[in-house]
Amino acid sequence: MAPSPISIGGEVETAQRVVSCPFAEESAPSMDHMTQVLFQLFAILLAAKIGNEIFRRLGQPTVVGEILGGVVAGPAVLGVYEVNAETTLFAEIGVVLLLFQVGLETRLHELLRVGGTALAVGILGVVFPFAGGFLAAELAGGDLALAIFLAAALTATSVGITSNVLRDLGALPTTSGRIILGAAVIDDVLAIMILSVATGVAAGSFAVTSILTLLAVALLFIGVVVLGGTQILRRRRSILTDPEFAETPLLPGMIVMLGLAAVASWIGLAAIIGAFLAGMVVGESSERHALEAEVAPVAAFFTPFFFGFIGAQVDLAGLANVDTILLLLGITALAVATKFVGAFVGAIRQGARRATLIGWGMVPRGEVGIVVAGLGLSAGAIESEIYSVVVGMAILTTLIVPPLLPTLVRRAESAAVPSDEENGPGIGTEDDDGIVPQPRTPSA
Amino acid sequence: MAPSPISIGGEVETAQRVVSCPFAEESAPSMDHMTQVLFQLFAILLAAKIGNEIFRRLGQPTVVGEILGGVVAGPAVLGVYEVNAETTLFAEIGVVLLLFQVGLETRLHELLRVGGTALAVGILGVVFPFAGGFLAAELAGGDLALAIFLAAALTATSVGITSNVLRDLGALPTTSGRIILGAAVIDDVLAIMILSVATGVAAGSFAVTSILTLLAVALLFIGVVVLGGTQILRRRRSILTDPEFAETPLLPGMIVMLGLAAVASWIGLAAIIGAFLAGMVVGESSERHALEAEVAPVAAFFTPFFFGFIGAQVDLAGLANVDTILLLLGITALAVATKFVGAFVGAIRQGARRATLIGWGMVPRGEVGIVVAGLGLSAGAIESEIYSVVVGMAILTTLIVPPLLPTLVRRAESAAVPSDEENGPGIGTEDDDGIVPQPRTPSA
Repeated sequence: MAPSPISIGGEVETAQRVVSCPFAEESAPSMDHMTQVLFQLFAILLAAKIGNEIFRRLGQPTVVGEILGGVVAGPAVLGVYEVNAETTLFAEIGVVLLLFQVGLETRLHELLRVGGTALAVGILGVVFPFAGGFLAAELAGGDLALAIFLAAALTATSVGITSNVLRDLGALPTTSGRIILGAAVIDDVLAIMILSVATGVAAGSFAVTSILTLLAVALLFIGVVVLGGTQILRRRRSILTDPEFAETPLLPGMIVMLGLAAVASWIGLAAIIGAFLAGMVVGESSERHALEAEVAPVAAFFTPFFFGFIGAQVDLAGLANVDTILLLLGITALAVATKFVGAFVGAIRQGARRATLIGWGMVPRGEVGIVVAGLGLSAGAIESEIYSVVVGMAILTTLIVPPLLPTLVRRAESAAVPSDEENGPGIGTEDDDGIVPQPRTPSA
Repeated sequence: MAPSPISIGGEVETAQRVVSCPFAEESAPSMDHMTQVLFQLFAILLAAKIGNEIFRRLGQPTVVGEILGGVVAGPAVLGVYEVNAETTLFAEIGVVLLLFQVGLETRLHELLRVGGTALAVGILGVVFPFAGGFLAAELAGGDLALAIFLAAALTATSVGITSNVLRDLGALPTTSGRIILGAAVIDDVLAIMILSVATGVAAGSFAVTSILTLLAVALLFIGVVVLGGTQILRRRRSILTDPEFAETPLLPGMIVMLGLAAVASWIGLAAIIGAFLAGMVVGESSERHALEAEVAPVAAFFTPFFFGFIGAQVDLAGLANVDTILLLLGITALAVATKFVGAFVGAIRQGARRATLIGWGMVPRGEVGIVVAGLGLSAGAIESEIYSVVVGMAILTTLIVPPLLPTLVRRAESAAVPSDEENGPGIGTEDDDGIVPQPRTPSA
């Protein structure tokens, strides 16, 4: 999945702005650099929480406030926060912890119960945006590499934002919540195949066999982790606290989380998919509730760095002229419409209200869209203007959804619609409409 | 405090090994690099906890096990863990959180009560190692820059290891524990002056006025934070949970911690001194116990990265011949003897047993000694062989102390000796000998 080492000429500057090399000018550990990083972490945490405070007082979604805090602290406005190796890592660990928490609250059999709908949502939610992005780029006269990268960037869903809001609303254990989570996993499996094609086309060659190998490896990983992991945990529910160092399950849980996130990332999946699976497996432990309680403060500390990081990607200078802004609005509309329609059609058997919630829930592109755009930039497939536009699209789709979700959740989950899933272990219990979404208290 | 941008010729390779540039070969965000970092974090956490497990079963100090886990995972043995920008940050945040926790458990008035002894321990504990290191280097025919950097590296105490062990033993709230903490702050104030002289000499010039300015700024920072901060907190004890985003005090506490760590680092003090002061100030909050409970899992997650990081600095290749090993043993003996004698003499009015505990407690050089050695290397004042030796000394002094502390604490704090501190608000209550050290349960 690595970007090909292609000469990238004029785009170098933009790419280096995105992730600058912290030790380019100095060859030894510098106190100055660590000081800068500490200031940046301080600045982004403070900015995100000020944004949170303002949006909370306005009765708006706090996650939007935290992202806008990142816009203000980031290069676009104040410039006190810089996107570099260290701050990127904090953002990554933030979203990894977010999905680990979501996994802890998700039981495998509940996810499998909605497997058919999730599969349909995942596939159609990829096909529509991909086709839409590809056709739009081709009609506009772009070359094949541009078209395929733009299509890939429109395709990638980030489940971090939606799952965070659903968690705050207490709506993860609803049918819609589970379908969104399952579809996000399937979405990511398809995304690595598309990205593989995209980087192959940009490099001038790609082989069908290697793409099928990627698919097989990804499915094997998911299957082994989910089935093998839950089997191990179910047979030995105390495994997390069996080591003597583990007075609490926190560190064994973190070790599993980091390990599976690393392996997922290594085989080309998003690290958050590995973290989600890790949470789901570890959630079979008898220590699940103790673990949830201990992970909560760690995640509360890290997740603002993720939200702030997304905001800090905004490049106002790159969106300085009217044409670019119109292009941004057009691509954002395309991204919203194609993802919504695809996911909506995939979920239609759940009824229109749930399908509407699921459709909107899949819309945010978040950090995944930004990563894909960065790969396209470094592969020379897209130029810096398009890069800024795609990043802007990823952020706009991420900002639009949270304000809609509370109403959509209320409508979807109060109107019970019979589920007709094929994997349900018992017809009578296959649906959780009885669960009334209950807002949970966020950790901070 | 920045190293002068001096040409460093042959030493470049060693220095780059210490902190390699993660994006040297790629100019855009690379999934591969993030994958590597996730694997490294996984590896060091697992290795540290395996070391912890082994040492726990052997009845030995777990912190030594975690450091040795870092030796095994690091470049010296397996090489699966690399010291780079991201892993260095995790180590730094680990020790920052450690000292923040220690600060939370330390009350200002208790620290001031032992101020006289702490001052004597801090000053003599700097003078003796500095004089010893300087004389040894001069006698061996080293030039002035080498002598002064070696002396500076022998001087620097790291309070992270000792305070962690004392915390586990429940011995922080004893007179000895408080003296060690107070002395560590004074030690660090003196260390920035010495380092300033050292970098000035290496660069060929230094001004007495700039050193006095450094001293004034450091003392002003400590005074303003400690006195101003505690005043603010005492007048408004609920300030941490006053913002609406703060359902718990965790994130306001983290913001203060990162901010003061950054400022301390900026003015040349160690970031951990800022974090310690932040913890002490924030500990005046009415939410102190809730904050302690929430910080515990965050610190439990981060601190193994710090211990593992120290172990990963071991450079076995640099210690490959007998002469170097003998030099290492000699310098380590000098480092132990001079620091112990200086701190012992400073604390002698507390009785021999307490003075012995305090003397040993100040011995570990930990990451501070490693940072000073790195500055000397990049300033061209010391060569790579001496660098390896000084790093080895910092690690050996850190490994020697934890096994001794349980016995020393028991002997020192069971034999009550009247304290004759000048700052005690009341003679009858000025000593806490009544406190029987109670082991606390570590978080994980």
